[in-house]
Amino acid sequence: MKVHNFNAGPSVLPNEVLYKASKALIDFDGTGMSILEIGHRTEQFTAVMEEARSLARELMQLEDDYEVLFLHGGATTQFMQVPMNLLESGETAAYVDTGVWSNKAIKEAKQFGYVDVIASSKETNYNHIPKQFTVPQQAKYLHITTNNTIYGTQWQTIPETDVPLIADMSSDILSRQMDFNRFALIYAGVQKNMGAAGATMVAVRKSMLGKVTRKIPSILDYRLHIENGSMLNTPPVFAVYISMLTLRWLKGQGGVAAIEKINAKKAALLYDEIDHNPLFRGNVAKEDRSRMNVTFTIDKPELEEEFLKFCKKEDIVGIKGHRLSGGFRASLYNALPLESVEAMVEAMKLFSLKKA
Amino acid sequence: MKVHNFNAGPSVLPNEVLYKASKALIDFDGTGMSILEIGHRTEQFTAVMEEARSLARELMQLEDDYEVLFLHGGATTQFMQVPMNLLESGETAAYVDTGVWSNKAIKEAKQFGYVDVIASSKETNYNHIPKQFTVPQQAKYLHITTNNTIYGTQWQTIPETDVPLIADMSSDILSRQMDFNRFALIYAGVQKNMGAAGATMVAVRKSMLGKVTRKIPSILDYRLHIENGSMLNTPPVFAVYISMLTLRWLKGQGGVAAIEKINAKKAALLYDEIDHNPLFRGNVAKEDRSRMNVTFTIDKPELEEEFLKFCKKEDIVGIKGHRLSGGFRASLYNALPLESVEAMVEAMKLFSLKKA
Repeated sequence: MKVHNFNAGPSVLPNEVLYKASKALIDFDGTGMSILEIGHRTEQFTAVMEEARSLARELMQLEDDYEVLFLHGGATTQFMQVPMNLLESGETAAYVDTGVWSNKAIKEAKQFGYVDVIASSKETNYNHIPKQFTVPQQAKYLHITTNNTIYGTQWQTIPETDVPLIADMSSDILSRQMDFNRFALIYAGVQKNMGAAGATMVAVRKSMLGKVTRKIPSILDYRLHIENGSMLNTPPVFAVYISMLTLRWLKGQGGVAAIEKINAKKAALLYDEIDHNPLFRGNVAKEDRSRMNVTFTIDKPELEEEFLKFCKKEDIVGIKGHRLSGGFRASLYNALPLESVEAMVEAMKLFSLKKA
Repeated sequence: MKVHNFNAGPSVLPNEVLYKASKALIDFDGTGMSILEIGHRTEQFTAVMEEARSLARELMQLEDDYEVLFLHGGATTQFMQVPMNLLESGETAAYVDTGVWSNKAIKEAKQFGYVDVIASSKETNYNHIPKQFTVPQQAKYLHITTNNTIYGTQWQTIPETDVPLIADMSSDILSRQMDFNRFALIYAGVQKNMGAAGATMVAVRKSMLGKVTRKIPSILDYRLHIENGSMLNTPPVFAVYISMLTLRWLKGQGGVAAIEKINAKKAALLYDEIDHNPLFRGNVAKEDRSRMNVTFTIDKPELEEEFLKFCKKEDIVGIKGHRLSGGFRASLYNALPLESVEAMVEAMKLFSLKKA
């Protein structure tokens, strides 16, 4: 039996991915070797890498100008790798500050050029997505964090701008339909909707690259990764394999359009309970609520611990809120089944009745 | 049944590591969740990370001044991260060039300071380890590659020098006894003797850090990783878990002293056959032969393909030599059982008889 896993990331994965991976750990593809024991330049693993790249491209419906890479390092590496590759010293990049992760991206970018933070919701503890801002004409790019895992906000509308758009989509990639081709570069730590910790996906328009004059260390140069088919060095083999299986699963579910419907249903169910149960309340502006990370508090703070214990008894795990946001957070990533949300809602109802 | 896996890396792992990991992919430590689904800041995973760090420290018998980190990125990331953290602009670092990997390290270091290549065996296609060289007094450090996977050479004696010593030990770490405390910094992609692709171990004397003035991106700053207990960002969870299991296995074998004896026996067995079988010959200077990667050729090049096919029938895989070195390469990492070397030697004998 599995628990109801609301972890914010690393987080729940589809059962079929786990079973397949568990077998591949003993014997991969009839090779008599574990997936961990085969060379990364073998036919077998090259096929895995190529399938992962091509599924990501297909599911995002990317135009031909894009290259998809699976790299080491996590989104935190991208915070500096993006400006290192795209922002010339002295040039300006525009960033919108919607929380901790945006902030980290801003901090790293400052080492490479001028950073113009054109909007921020910091003063209200990031409880909404800023709507009023102007992107400076001369900005090399505009960077946004499409979903804010800690606070539970999400950009519902991608901003219109003539400036190339760059997004950290770590916590909502492939969870909803959007025109991914509007982004010049997309990056995402794969450990939420695209796999397990240990790899980062980057999708970049090739036409964006090669325009800065600084020397870039080889391992941080997107062009070298592209030239080498995302295998400039030994890639994080197993993490790429898990991503490939997860993307295959998503395609089998009907792709982004199909998963978006389920995600909408899951989020509606939980937010509806939050809005109607007198004991709980949501943390953020309704119009900016995230469908991936639902943050909420309990009206009687003295019941917080008791509710967590109550949930634990019901095999509901991972719902303690981030310390910066407090209360609770239920993460509803692609692989979380509807039944887990139903179990959560049931627990909220029961607990509320008990305390009425 | 498993094959005899002589892959150069990613490479063979102990069966007990694979079985344990395969189970943890379904249910880790009774959590009802996969090792891929648990938060990296949970008690359970923090324990994994701490055990991996402390086993590495114990097995290398490191003094208190060292910190052990498990990072993203592979040794290729360390090629630039080492000079970025240790070499001030304008200062000199000394490197010994013993092959492709040394060369890559040299290339990346040049972006950060002056690189003095004090010795090289390039002119003889890296068939030996240079013995005569002088380390400039003013060098900030001396960098060596302790084992050269492609060419099959290995430093049998660690050079005596007053300059801080830095080593890429990716392909021979923990395979033999040495005074690891003689190194100011050791790095190793873990996918040969310490686990599976996706993590890199760094052991560094803290007193080496904080001396350069350049700004270092957060994710590349060793000090920040140390401050954060090797969890500055989401670590490569599964790769660290595999490393922990592999280190546990090594400790169970009796540690480095015990595995060295087995490694010596495996290498002696294979080199002895190479030296006595008239059909084969070794590639490199006898005194510099690697115990990890045994490179050799067949005297009649027209038989090369046939020998590979013959081995494949005997379930011997991964022995095709690197294109830069040609012929064959049998990698004898810690987890390769003696029986696999015996099978290889038997195959060489049989093939030789058939062709006599």
